[in-house]
Amino acid sequence: MLRRGFQAAVILGHHGTLPGATHLLPRFNPASAFGSSTESLVSRFCQEMTKSKNYALPNASWGPDMLSLYHEFLEKTKTNGWVRVPSFRSNRDHIQGFKLPLDLSANSDKSDWRLFTRCIEREGQGYEYVIFFQPSEKKSICLFQPGPYLEGVPGFVHGGSLAALIDETFSKTAYLSGEGLLTVNFNIRFKNLIPLGSLAVLNVNVEKIEDQKMYLSCVTQSRDQQTVYAKASGTFLQMHLEEDSSRQ
Amino acid sequence: MLRRGFQAAVILGHHGTLPGATHLLPRFNPASAFGSSTESLVSRFCQEMTKSKNYALPNASWGPDMLSLYHEFLEKTKTNGWVRVPSFRSNRDHIQGFKLPLDLSANSDKSDWRLFTRCIEREGQGYEYVIFFQPSEKKSICLFQPGPYLEGVPGFVHGGSLAALIDETFSKTAYLSGEGLLTVNFNIRFKNLIPLGSLAVLNVNVEKIEDQKMYLSCVTQSRDQQTVYAKASGTFLQMHLEEDSSRQ
Repeated sequence: MLRRGFQAAVILGHHGTLPGATHLLPRFNPASAFGSSTESLVSRFCQEMTKSKNYALPNASWGPDMLSLYHEFLEKTKTNGWVRVPSFRSNRDHIQGFKLPLDLSANSDKSDWRLFTRCIEREGQGYEYVIFFQPSEKKSICLFQPGPYLEGVPGFVHGGSLAALIDETFSKTAYLSGEGLLTVNFNIRFKNLIPLGSLAVLNVNVEKIEDQKMYLSCVTQSRDQQTVYAKASGTFLQMHLEEDSSRQ
Repeated sequence: MLRRGFQAAVILGHHGTLPGATHLLPRFNPASAFGSSTESLVSRFCQEMTKSKNYALPNASWGPDMLSLYHEFLEKTKTNGWVRVPSFRSNRDHIQGFKLPLDLSANSDKSDWRLFTRCIEREGQGYEYVIFFQPSEKKSICLFQPGPYLEGVPGFVHGGSLAALIDETFSKTAYLSGEGLLTVNFNIRFKNLIPLGSLAVLNVNVEKIEDQKMYLSCVTQSRDQQTVYAKASGTFLQMHLEEDSSRQ
């Protein structure tokens, strides 16, 4: 699995088809990897940049359930060590100043790139969500209010849209917990359909970190915990991002 | 697993929080289930309705790779039994005239509901895809050109957006192959990142149908088959949709 992660970047160097892109081999040095503490990762990754809109803040579409649970966790950020993870239009906003394993700087200013789970601009129509991260316990909560653009079976959330948000919550949790960067695999079992417009709560835990892989789990349920919507697990590859002073 | 499918509908009947919805128990009759032939399902499900926009047709954003492979498969619809699956804004357009296991008619005209994989309206920015289905072999091909709104790692497709499209292709294939309706579980292993703007080809097969469950597989790869992007599998629950004369 670990080799596949590297292979990904290497193969893309030869077969990547993005016009104009130069895909370099990953700038990865196992000997120096994963020296960053969770605190420094949080400090770096979760800074609230004034120039980029933060989508993890309440808007007029948030219902009473979403709002009240949001404020409950916001209180925990003041006393219990929880961190509200900001959410920008693109991961490019999070990783400014770092070198990616794949060099894509040639494409950075040509398109309106968007993080997939922020692809729908209209408030309340698509993904409304906010992630809170607990550094010392390496766990996250994601509050998710799905809008009508996330439909699968009429009236209910498309299984793929839930899978995508779990993967995204895994991704942010994995990075903050120890530089987990690339999804290696992802499994989900669906138990109940989520009604559009309701509130679902994703409970994510880092189960273990071993051989530069990070294993995460997620239980998605109703606020009252009486209905389990889905259970998921995922494996991420750890990958160190080096400082890149030339880009800042 | 089968019980969970029923349980889903039943539990939603008690705990569903969609305002104004009445969730009835599933209108499912095992004795009468799965009598529909693949031919009749295709005939019913794949009709090209003139009043609904079909998103599975070429537009100006499609690149040369996508276009040429599209025309290759379009030729196969004339001689080799392949079917181009139309793609509408919502699954509501596909299942007109059928009763769903969950009665959601109260919500049908209140919102701009969209199938998740058609949530991005702007051509070329999000999901560009078309599914071709081969009824006699119970397999599908999905041509996928991801736009910049599907980003994860900068410059590359978000793993969750690929997972969602595979789930959607599974969903259409499962229904047409034997009334597979609800995803029970879904697994994906990522091998290589897909560059945004390139072409990926999803190869979906129904592996077996057993105990009212349908098992599907998917290999996602580059057009030249030299790069495997991901391998996935999924299980769907078969569920018969009865005619609903009151809605037409």
